[in-house]
Amino acid sequence: MTQPAPESFNEMLAQLIPSAHRLGVRVVELAPGMARSEVPLQGNTNHLGTMYAAAMFTVAEVLGGALVLATFDVARYYPVVKELTLRFRRPARSDVSARAALPVDLVASLTAEADNAGKAEFILDVDLLDAEGQLVATSHGTYQIRRHGS
Amino acid sequence: MTQPAPESFNEMLAQLIPSAHRLGVRVVELAPGMARSEVPLQGNTNHLGTMYAAAMFTVAEVLGGALVLATFDVARYYPVVKELTLRFRRPARSDVSARAALPVDLVASLTAEADNAGKAEFILDVDLLDAEGQLVATSHGTYQIRRHGS
Repeated sequence: MTQPAPESFNEMLAQLIPSAHRLGVRVVELAPGMARSEVPLQGNTNHLGTMYAAAMFTVAEVLGGALVLATFDVARYYPVVKELTLRFRRPARSDVSARAALPVDLVASLTAEADNAGKAEFILDVDLLDAEGQLVATSHGTYQIRRHGS
Repeated sequence: MTQPAPESFNEMLAQLIPSAHRLGVRVVELAPGMARSEVPLQGNTNHLGTMYAAAMFTVAEVLGGALVLATFDVARYYPVVKELTLRFRRPARSDVSARAALPVDLVASLTAEADNAGKAEFILDVDLLDAEGQLVATSHGTYQIRRHGS
Protein backbone atom coordinates (compact mmCIF):
# COMPACT_ATOMS: atom_id res chain seq x y z
CA MET A 1 0.00 0.00 0.00
CA THR A 2 1.28 3.43 -1.01
CA GLN A 3 0.88 6.45 1.20
CA PRO A 4 1.42 9.43 -1.06
CA ALA A 5 3.15 12.57 0.15
CA PRO A 6 1.09 15.74 -0.31
CA GLU A 7 3.21 16.63 -3.37
CA SER A 8 2.47 13.28 -5.00
CA PHE A 9 -1.22 13.69 -4.28
CA ASN A 10 -1.20 17.20 -5.77
CA GLU A 11 0.52 15.97 -8.93
CA MET A 12 -2.07 13.22 -9.20
CA LEU A 13 -4.85 15.80 -8.69
CA ALA A 14 -3.44 17.97 -11.49
CA GLN A 15 -3.52 14.94 -13.80
CA LEU A 16 -6.78 13.33 -12.76
CA ILE A 17 -8.97 16.25 -11.64
CA PRO A 18 -7.52 19.24 -13.50
CA SER A 19 -10.35 21.60 -12.62
CA ALA A 20 -9.71 21.12 -8.87
CA HIS A 21 -6.03 21.81 -9.48
CA ARG A 22 -6.83 24.93 -11.52
CA LEU A 23 -8.83 26.31 -8.59
CA GLY A 24 -5.56 26.21 -6.66
CA VAL A 25 -6.73 23.49 -4.28
CA ARG A 26 -3.89 21.44 -2.84
CA VAL A 27 -3.33 19.02 -0.03
CA VAL A 28 -0.76 20.25 2.50
CA GLU A 29 -0.83 17.42 5.07
CA LEU A 30 -1.57 13.77 4.49
CA ALA A 31 -1.33 10.77 6.77
CA PRO A 32 -3.41 7.63 7.30
CA GLY A 33 -6.73 8.89 8.65
CA MET A 34 -5.93 12.62 8.26
CA ALA A 35 -5.76 15.14 5.44
CA ARG A 36 -5.55 18.93 5.30
CA SER A 37 -6.11 21.07 2.23
CA GLU A 38 -5.88 24.72 1.27
CA VAL A 39 -7.25 27.01 -1.44
CA PRO A 40 -6.15 30.57 -2.22
CA LEU A 41 -8.52 33.54 -2.25
CA GLN A 42 -6.67 34.90 -5.29
CA GLY A 43 -8.45 33.85 -8.47
CA ASN A 44 -11.41 32.57 -6.45
CA THR A 45 -13.28 35.73 -5.49
CA ASN A 46 -16.99 36.28 -6.06
CA HIS A 47 -19.20 39.31 -6.71
CA LEU A 48 -18.61 40.43 -3.11
CA GLY A 49 -14.83 40.08 -3.18
CA THR A 50 -14.96 37.10 -0.82
CA MET A 51 -14.25 33.47 -1.68
CA TYR A 52 -16.56 31.88 -4.23
CA ALA A 53 -18.61 28.95 -2.98
CA ALA A 54 -17.20 26.42 -5.48
CA ALA A 55 -13.64 26.98 -4.26
CA MET A 56 -14.83 26.18 -0.72
CA PHE A 57 -16.76 23.17 -2.00
CA THR A 58 -13.62 21.85 -3.67
CA VAL A 59 -11.19 22.39 -0.80
CA ALA A 60 -13.56 20.33 1.37
CA GLU A 61 -14.59 17.73 -1.22
CA VAL A 62 -11.05 16.77 -2.19
CA LEU A 63 -10.35 15.59 1.36
CA GLY A 64 -12.46 12.48 0.80
CA GLY A 65 -10.24 11.28 -1.99
CA ALA A 66 -7.06 12.33 -0.21
CA LEU A 67 -8.08 10.38 2.90
CA VAL A 68 -8.89 7.29 0.87
CA LEU A 69 -5.55 7.43 -0.90
CA ALA A 70 -3.66 7.89 2.35
CA THR A 71 -5.63 5.31 4.33
CA PHE A 72 -6.82 2.50 2.08
CA ASP A 73 -5.11 0.23 -0.43
CA VAL A 74 -5.64 2.14 -3.69
CA ALA A 75 -4.78 -0.98 -5.67
CA ARG A 76 -8.06 -2.40 -4.32
CA TYR A 77 -10.34 0.59 -3.62
CA TYR A 78 -11.22 3.96 -5.13
CA PRO A 79 -13.25 6.85 -3.66
CA VAL A 80 -16.61 8.22 -4.82
CA VAL A 81 -18.51 11.20 -3.39
CA LYS A 82 -22.26 10.58 -3.02
CA GLU A 83 -23.52 13.75 -1.37
CA LEU A 84 -22.03 16.92 0.02
CA THR A 85 -23.62 19.77 1.94
CA LEU A 86 -21.76 23.02 2.30
CA ARG A 87 -23.02 25.53 4.84
CA PHE A 88 -21.59 29.02 4.63
CA ARG A 89 -21.15 30.69 8.00
CA ARG A 90 -19.32 33.93 7.25
CA PRO A 91 -17.60 35.46 4.22
CA ALA A 92 -14.05 34.16 3.65
CA ARG A 93 -11.70 37.10 3.06
CA SER A 94 -8.45 35.08 2.96
CA ASP A 95 -7.10 31.72 1.86
CA VAL A 96 -9.12 28.87 3.36
CA SER A 97 -7.97 25.58 4.85
CA ALA A 98 -9.92 22.44 5.63
CA ARG A 99 -9.10 19.31 7.62
CA ALA A 100 -10.73 15.92 7.78
CA ALA A 101 -10.07 12.85 9.88
CA LEU A 102 -11.28 9.29 9.61
CA PRO A 103 -11.07 7.23 12.81
CA VAL A 104 -8.52 4.50 12.17
CA ASP A 105 -10.77 1.91 13.83
CA LEU A 106 -13.25 2.43 10.98
CA VAL A 107 -10.75 1.35 8.34
CA ALA A 108 -10.93 -2.38 9.07
CA SER A 109 -14.74 -2.47 9.08
CA LEU A 110 -15.03 -0.35 5.92
CA THR A 111 -12.49 -2.58 4.18
CA ALA A 112 -14.37 -5.72 5.20
CA GLU A 113 -17.67 -4.23 4.04
CA ALA A 114 -16.20 -3.17 0.67
CA ASP A 115 -14.71 -6.62 0.20
CA ASN A 116 -18.12 -8.17 0.83
CA ALA A 117 -20.51 -5.73 -0.81
CA GLY A 118 -18.24 -4.00 -3.33
CA LYS A 119 -18.59 -0.68 -1.50
CA ALA A 120 -18.71 0.92 1.94
CA GLU A 121 -19.88 4.37 2.99
CA PHE A 122 -18.29 6.90 5.33
CA ILE A 123 -19.11 10.42 6.48
CA LEU A 124 -16.72 13.35 6.72
CA ASP A 125 -17.54 16.51 8.65
CA VAL A 126 -15.13 19.29 7.85
CA ASP A 127 -14.57 22.78 9.24
CA LEU A 128 -13.34 25.37 6.76
CA LEU A 129 -11.20 28.04 8.40
CA ASP A 130 -9.88 31.37 7.21
CA ALA A 131 -6.30 32.52 7.77
CA GLU A 132 -7.20 33.74 11.28
CA GLY A 133 -8.69 30.37 12.21
CA GLN A 134 -12.26 31.63 12.03
CA LEU A 135 -14.92 29.19 10.87
CA VAL A 136 -16.16 30.29 7.43
CA ALA A 137 -18.06 27.16 6.37
CA THR A 138 -18.78 23.57 7.32
CA SER A 139 -19.19 20.61 5.02
CA HIS A 140 -20.91 17.28 5.58
CA GLY A 141 -19.93 14.71 2.98
CA THR A 142 -20.99 11.15 2.26
CA TYR A 143 -18.35 9.14 0.44
CA GLN A 144 -17.86 5.54 -0.58
CA ILE A 145 -14.88 3.37 -1.06
CA ARG A 146 -15.54 0.99 -3.93
CA ARG A 147 -13.67 -2.18 -4.74
CA HIS A 148 -12.07 -2.12 -8.18
CA GLY A 149 -13.91 -4.42 -10.57
CA SER A 150 -17.06 -4.60 -8.44
CA MET B 1 -34.62 47.15 -13.56
CA THR B 2 -32.27 45.41 -15.98
CA GLN B 3 -32.94 41.90 -17.20
CA PRO B 4 -29.63 40.71 -18.57
CA ALA B 5 -29.43 38.47 -21.60
CA PRO B 6 -27.52 35.22 -21.02
CA GLU B 7 -24.49 36.72 -22.82
CA SER B 8 -24.45 39.74 -20.51
CA PHE B 9 -24.74 37.50 -17.47
CA ASN B 10 -21.86 35.34 -18.72
CA GLU B 11 -19.65 38.39 -19.27
CA MET B 12 -20.47 39.54 -15.76
CA LEU B 13 -19.66 36.07 -14.43
CA ALA B 14 -16.26 36.11 -16.16
CA GLN B 15 -15.50 39.45 -14.48
CA LEU B 16 -17.00 38.87 -11.04
CA ILE B 17 -16.60 35.11 -10.46
CA PRO B 18 -13.69 34.15 -12.72
CA SER B 19 -13.29 30.65 -11.30
CA ALA B 20 -16.90 29.76 -12.24
CA HIS B 21 -16.25 31.09 -15.75
CA ARG B 22 -13.00 29.10 -16.01
CA LEU B 23 -14.93 25.90 -15.24
CA GLY B 24 -16.86 26.63 -18.43
CA VAL B 25 -20.12 27.29 -16.61
CA ARG B 26 -22.47 29.56 -18.53
CA VAL B 27 -26.09 30.57 -18.46
CA VAL B 28 -27.94 29.67 -21.64
CA GLU B 29 -31.49 30.82 -20.81
CA LEU B 30 -32.55 33.63 -18.54
CA ALA B 31 -35.92 35.17 -17.85
CA PRO B 32 -37.68 36.55 -14.76
CA GLY B 33 -38.15 33.52 -12.50
CA MET B 34 -36.21 31.06 -14.73
CA ALA B 35 -32.57 30.31 -15.49
CA ARG B 36 -30.80 27.45 -17.23
CA SER B 37 -27.06 26.78 -17.16
CA GLU B 38 -24.59 24.37 -18.74
CA VAL B 39 -21.10 23.07 -18.04
CA PRO B 40 -18.89 21.04 -20.38
CA LEU B 41 -17.44 17.66 -19.49
CA GLN B 42 -14.21 18.63 -21.25
CA GLY B 43 -11.73 20.01 -18.73
CA ASN B 44 -13.95 18.90 -15.85
CA THR B 45 -13.32 15.16 -15.65
CA ASN B 46 -12.38 13.34 -12.45
CA HIS B 47 -10.35 10.21 -11.63
CA LEU B 48 -13.14 8.09 -13.17
CA GLY B 49 -13.39 10.07 -16.41
CA THR B 50 -16.83 11.40 -15.43
CA MET B 51 -17.69 14.95 -14.41
CA TYR B 52 -15.98 16.26 -11.28
CA ALA B 53 -18.29 17.18 -8.41
CA ALA B 54 -17.22 20.84 -8.26
CA ALA B 55 -18.26 21.47 -11.86
CA MET B 56 -21.71 20.11 -11.01
CA PHE B 57 -21.80 22.19 -7.84
CA THR B 58 -21.05 25.31 -9.85
CA VAL B 59 -23.51 24.76 -12.69
CA ALA B 60 -26.23 24.46 -10.03
CA GLU B 61 -25.00 27.13 -7.63
CA VAL B 62 -24.74 29.87 -10.26
CA LEU B 63 -28.48 29.64 -10.94
CA GLY B 64 -29.25 31.40 -7.66
CA GLY B 65 -27.36 34.50 -8.73
CA ALA B 66 -28.67 34.32 -12.29
CA LEU B 67 -32.27 34.15 -11.05
CA VAL B 68 -31.78 37.08 -8.71
CA LEU B 69 -30.30 39.19 -11.50
CA ALA B 70 -33.12 38.29 -13.88
CA THR B 71 -35.92 38.66 -11.36
CA PHE B 72 -35.08 41.31 -8.77
CA ASP B 73 -33.91 44.90 -8.98
CA VAL B 74 -30.13 44.51 -8.79
CA ALA B 75 -29.75 48.18 -7.98
CA ARG B 76 -31.43 47.32 -4.64
CA TYR B 77 -30.60 43.63 -3.95
CA TYR B 78 -27.72 41.20 -4.33
CA PRO B 79 -27.66 37.41 -3.94
CA VAL B 80 -25.85 35.31 -1.32
CA VAL B 81 -25.73 31.51 -1.06
CA LYS B 82 -26.15 30.20 2.50
CA GLU B 83 -26.16 26.45 2.07
CA LEU B 84 -26.09 23.99 -0.82
CA THR B 85 -26.48 20.22 -0.87
CA LEU B 86 -25.46 18.31 -3.94
CA ARG B 87 -26.58 14.71 -4.23
CA PHE B 88 -24.93 12.66 -6.94
CA ARG B 89 -27.26 10.12 -8.56
CA ARG B 90 -25.24 8.65 -11.42
CA PRO B 91 -21.93 9.44 -13.13
CA ALA B 92 -22.18 12.28 -15.68
CA ARG B 93 -20.48 11.22 -18.92
CA SER B 94 -21.43 14.28 -20.99
CA ASP B 95 -21.99 18.02 -20.64
CA VAL B 96 -24.49 18.78 -17.87
CA SER B 97 -27.34 21.28 -17.76
CA ALA B 98 -29.32 22.60 -14.82
CA ARG B 99 -32.51 24.61 -14.57
CA ALA B 100 -34.08 26.53 -11.71
CA ALA B 101 -37.33 28.38 -11.35
CA LEU B 102 -38.60 30.81 -8.75
CA PRO B 103 -42.37 31.20 -8.57
CA VAL B 104 -43.15 34.77 -9.63
CA ASP B 105 -45.66 35.16 -6.79
CA LEU B 106 -42.74 34.84 -4.34
CA VAL B 107 -40.99 37.87 -5.74
CA ALA B 108 -43.27 40.46 -4.15
CA SER B 109 -43.13 38.86 -0.70
CA LEU B 110 -39.34 38.36 -0.82
CA THR B 111 -38.88 41.97 -1.91
CA ALA B 112 -41.08 43.22 0.92
CA GLU B 113 -39.22 41.07 3.43
CA ALA B 114 -35.82 42.26 2.18
CA ASP B 115 -36.99 45.87 2.37
CA ASN B 116 -38.07 45.34 5.97
CA ALA B 117 -35.40 43.03 7.35
CA GLY B 118 -32.50 43.70 4.98
CA LYS B 119 -32.64 40.15 3.64
CA ALA B 120 -35.01 37.39 2.56
CA GLU B 121 -34.39 33.70 2.02
CA PHE B 122 -35.44 31.41 -0.82
CA ILE B 123 -34.88 27.77 -1.72
CA LEU B 124 -33.93 26.39 -5.13
CA ASP B 125 -34.24 22.70 -5.98
CA VAL B 126 -32.41 21.89 -9.16
CA ASP B 127 -32.16 18.79 -11.34
CA LEU B 128 -28.87 18.28 -13.15
CA LEU B 129 -29.27 16.42 -16.42
CA ASP B 130 -26.80 14.85 -18.80
CA ALA B 131 -26.98 15.26 -22.60
CA GLU B 132 -29.54 12.46 -22.81
CA GLY B 133 -31.78 14.09 -20.24
CA GLN B 134 -30.89 11.58 -17.51
CA LEU B 135 -30.79 12.85 -13.95
CA VAL B 136 -27.16 12.86 -12.77
CA ALA B 137 -27.49 14.95 -9.60
CA THR B 138 -29.87 17.10 -7.61
CA SER B 139 -29.09 20.22 -5.65
CA HIS B 140 -30.95 21.90 -2.82
CA GLY B 141 -29.81 25.45 -2.23
CA THR B 142 -30.69 28.11 0.31
CA TYR B 143 -30.08 31.63 -0.94
CA GLN B 144 -30.77 35.13 0.26
CA ILE B 145 -31.45 38.39 -1.44
CA ARG B 146 -29.89 41.17 0.59
CA ARG B 147 -30.66 44.85 0.36
CA HIS B 148 -27.61 46.93 -0.59
CA GLY B 149 -26.39 48.92 2.38
CA SER B 150 -28.22 46.82 4.97
